[in-house]
Amino acid sequence: MAVEATANIGVVGLAAMGSNLARNLAHHGNTVAVYNRHYERTEKLINEHGNEGKFVPSKTIEEFVASLKRPRTAIIMVKAGGPTDAVINELADAMEPGDIIVDGGNSYFEDTIRREKEIRARGLHFVGCGVSGGEEGALNGPSLMPGGTEESWKTLGPILKSIAAVAEGEPCVTHIGENGAGHFVKMVHNGIEYADMQLIAESYDLMHRGLGMDAAEIGDVFEEWNKTELNSYLIEITAEVLHQVDAKTGKALVDVIVDRAGMKGTGTWTVQTALSLAIPVTGIAEAVFARGLSGMSEQRAEAQKQHLAGPVQKLDVAPAERAAFIEDIRHALYASKIVAYAQGFDEIQAGAKEYGWNIDLAAVARIWRGGCIIRAQFLNRVSEAFESGEADISLLFAPYFKDAIAKAQDSWRRVVAKAALNGMPTPAFASSLSYYDGLRSDRLPAALIQGQRDYFGAHTYGRIDEPGAFHTLWAEPGRPEITA
Amino acid sequence: MAVEATANIGVVGLAAMGSNLARNLAHHGNTVAVYNRHYERTEKLINEHGNEGKFVPSKTIEEFVASLKRPRTAIIMVKAGGPTDAVINELADAMEPGDIIVDGGNSYFEDTIRREKEIRARGLHFVGCGVSGGEEGALNGPSLMPGGTEESWKTLGPILKSIAAVAEGEPCVTHIGENGAGHFVKMVHNGIEYADMQLIAESYDLMHRGLGMDAAEIGDVFEEWNKTELNSYLIEITAEVLHQVDAKTGKALVDVIVDRAGMKGTGTWTVQTALSLAIPVTGIAEAVFARGLSGMSEQRAEAQKQHLAGPVQKLDVAPAERAAFIEDIRHALYASKIVAYAQGFDEIQAGAKEYGWNIDLAAVARIWRGGCIIRAQFLNRVSEAFESGEADISLLFAPYFKDAIAKAQDSWRRVVAKAALNGMPTPAFASSLSYYDGLRSDRLPAALIQGQRDYFGAHTYGRIDEPGAFHTLWAEPGRPEITA
Repeated sequence: MAVEATANIGVVGLAAMGSNLARNLAHHGNTVAVYNRHYERTEKLINEHGNEGKFVPSKTIEEFVASLKRPRTAIIMVKAGGPTDAVINELADAMEPGDIIVDGGNSYFEDTIRREKEIRARGLHFVGCGVSGGEEGALNGPSLMPGGTEESWKTLGPILKSIAAVAEGEPCVTHIGENGAGHFVKMVHNGIEYADMQLIAESYDLMHRGLGMDAAEIGDVFEEWNKTELNSYLIEITAEVLHQVDAKTGKALVDVIVDRAGMKGTGTWTVQTALSLAIPVTGIAEAVFARGLSGMSEQRAEAQKQHLAGPVQKLDVAPAERAAFIEDIRHALYASKIVAYAQGFDEIQAGAKEYGWNIDLAAVARIWRGGCIIRAQFLNRVSEAFESGEADISLLFAPYFKDAIAKAQDSWRRVVAKAALNGMPTPAFASSLSYYDGLRSDRLPAALIQGQRDYFGAHTYGRIDEPGAFHTLWAEPGRPEITA
Repeated sequence: MAVEATANIGVVGLAAMGSNLARNLAHHGNTVAVYNRHYERTEKLINEHGNEGKFVPSKTIEEFVASLKRPRTAIIMVKAGGPTDAVINELADAMEPGDIIVDGGNSYFEDTIRREKEIRARGLHFVGCGVSGGEEGALNGPSLMPGGTEESWKTLGPILKSIAAVAEGEPCVTHIGENGAGHFVKMVHNGIEYADMQLIAESYDLMHRGLGMDAAEIGDVFEEWNKTELNSYLIEITAEVLHQVDAKTGKALVDVIVDRAGMKGTGTWTVQTALSLAIPVTGIAEAVFARGLSGMSEQRAEAQKQHLAGPVQKLDVAPAERAAFIEDIRHALYASKIVAYAQGFDEIQAGAKEYGWNIDLAAVARIWRGGCIIRAQFLNRVSEAFESGEADISLLFAPYFKDAIAKAQDSWRRVVAKAALNGMPTPAFASSLSYYDGLRSDRLPAALIQGQRDYFGAHTYGRIDEPGAFHTLWAEPGRPEITA
């Protein structure tokens, strides 16, 4: 092949995410090799955006690889699963030892661990890299979470830094850890995003159905909230979504949208993985379940037909107390959010331990401050808490967050209690509160569970006054015996 | 080999569960071949219980197989995972086409699906069989949940019927469905057991820490509750556990047990599988998470040291209202239990659909009435609800359960609200209530989530007034466009 190696980076897969990432790379002085299985997409990119920077289009994967300078570095932006495996193999066949394959899709971190091992055995580097921020982020600056070897980071780091979002002067990218660490952290990021969105949805629901406020009024509230410690991308776009008017009906657009939330799997993975690691991520789990429930059309329709018993789903808040109750909701949202983040970081910490990654949690919080969906002011405090060591055991013990919850908790309790009495669902608020109250319990009823387990399954229990595992012959009172 | 084939059933693995199952088989007229990797266990069984029936001990697996009549049928009772695979292979090597290998361990149903396929390819039958009831059940009558082929059921059915628990005159065993169906249903059974135990634990906690009652008093309450619609094995043993006095200290035994609940994985599997099937099993998930939280020793110790803010975890219930509040707790327990069972059966139904099993839910409820840990009066009503078709869409719509929740729900709300206000954790009560209130919601805030998803990820949304998938250019107000 007579192709000259001029590109310092390549992108395979030129759908929305891939072409935006390629353009972003070109905007920042990179020479970008581009390839797509169907050439039309490559042509479209060159025709529409070829003047934005230096692109090197190819019609075959061999040509694409030949157009890359050594060590050849290619970012794959195709569907997770089979398509990703197929492209990895094609690239690996065409590349040479020392070259770097980057998977920028939402791959499951265990797939990334497997692929890294396989590709490393062939002498190449494989980097699973979380890319957050959607199409807009890919174009203008995503938050990037690369895994893989230190060596690949030396080549890849400067390129990724050139295109990442910038928050407080720093590019939103860091080397997360070996092999699957980047995709693991991206997965948890998405799980936290589910929790964030569910907490916002519960707040909206309490104001909308509970207090009878219309979408625009609630949008105004979120606009105000965005000036408080809740300041974040998701709160900001919530205000915009609620202010959006439907051109067809003139109504608030949110009121004509079907109330069935979709999902693409990363929230589910986050909870499944947390379960394997025995880390309670109650906020994320309730968020995933709430989406599931919203999609159970047959059961929901039947519930309407059968009029399941319960209060009318209006909050009995007197007009004079309305403003104070809205402030209570804000506090409930903030406290629950802190719990959800604490749980998410617990999962990252447990994952790091399980898979042998050395993850800098402060750096993770820092690179989430820009580019990604959960970007927020609040992450400055999170990164400080980890940096100072105050959050070593849990984010909940860092003074800033401990105090924030202390200030918010009376409100949080009032919201959960009133919602329960008035028939409004608050799965994530209530679950986070129970988690918090469980954590601060000197004594949990788990002792009874251990008694039951020993009764029916001889699973043994521990005693508070001496070490060892004990078994009681429950049928004959008062005869504990040591069994292990 | 000069061994005569005299046994109609065999058991491999003679630890507590295996020897009890072998004895149970012998007690009911079966001639039972027995084999254990270390012969001492086999000897012990024969020495201690050889006179209870007809046993045929073997020192090698070949001898064991030779001692079985055709079609040879062997039940494996060894550790799930690697050990089970090893024994399956040894047996398959020694057996002949038409013979039946039964795995009676707590295997993950996907392993069972895989094994069934492999063993069927070798011309043998493979049956994954859930066995519930612990050691006592194995000896005196377990609840049995066999999967596998119809043909294997013809041989195995009569043997299993001879040893199963009997409830209302019927043996607690039914052919659940093909391949992994039996282990799937056993898994969900265990998940429901987790929820049941957590709900009991929350009730106990509210009375113990919340109302300041001692273990014996609470034991008396559970004894009374066992005479109501809550009548069940778990409520019964809870009373006994709470009445148990510690010989060493003279205190209630439950008060000297370490409050850290163990788990062996089936609850975790139940939730992970439900997540894959997009079925919300909030009650089971909160139960698993609560056990996880109880085991987070470092975080819990730090929480004590740091005095996380919150009420003192006493319920402000006036003495005159105490009895009424205890009755509220009973209603909360019952309503939450109904939700947990509805969710568990939803998971079975979704699993049946996903894996192509034809599962009779009424029969499942019937075989859980005896022998197993969750056996309860209540399951008569469950089986009737499925049998009549009233629970086709969900258990929650069968009149008996719909009315039960209608009667209980005010109490349920009071308990969740008071617990939230007074700082007591009720993760499973609160989560089940939110699920119920979510299910009966005409309109959920999922519409807002769809708006957010379309805003940042162009995921599109549905409209309530026309079919199709819509995308809005959110930055430019009022311009929806059809994209898919």
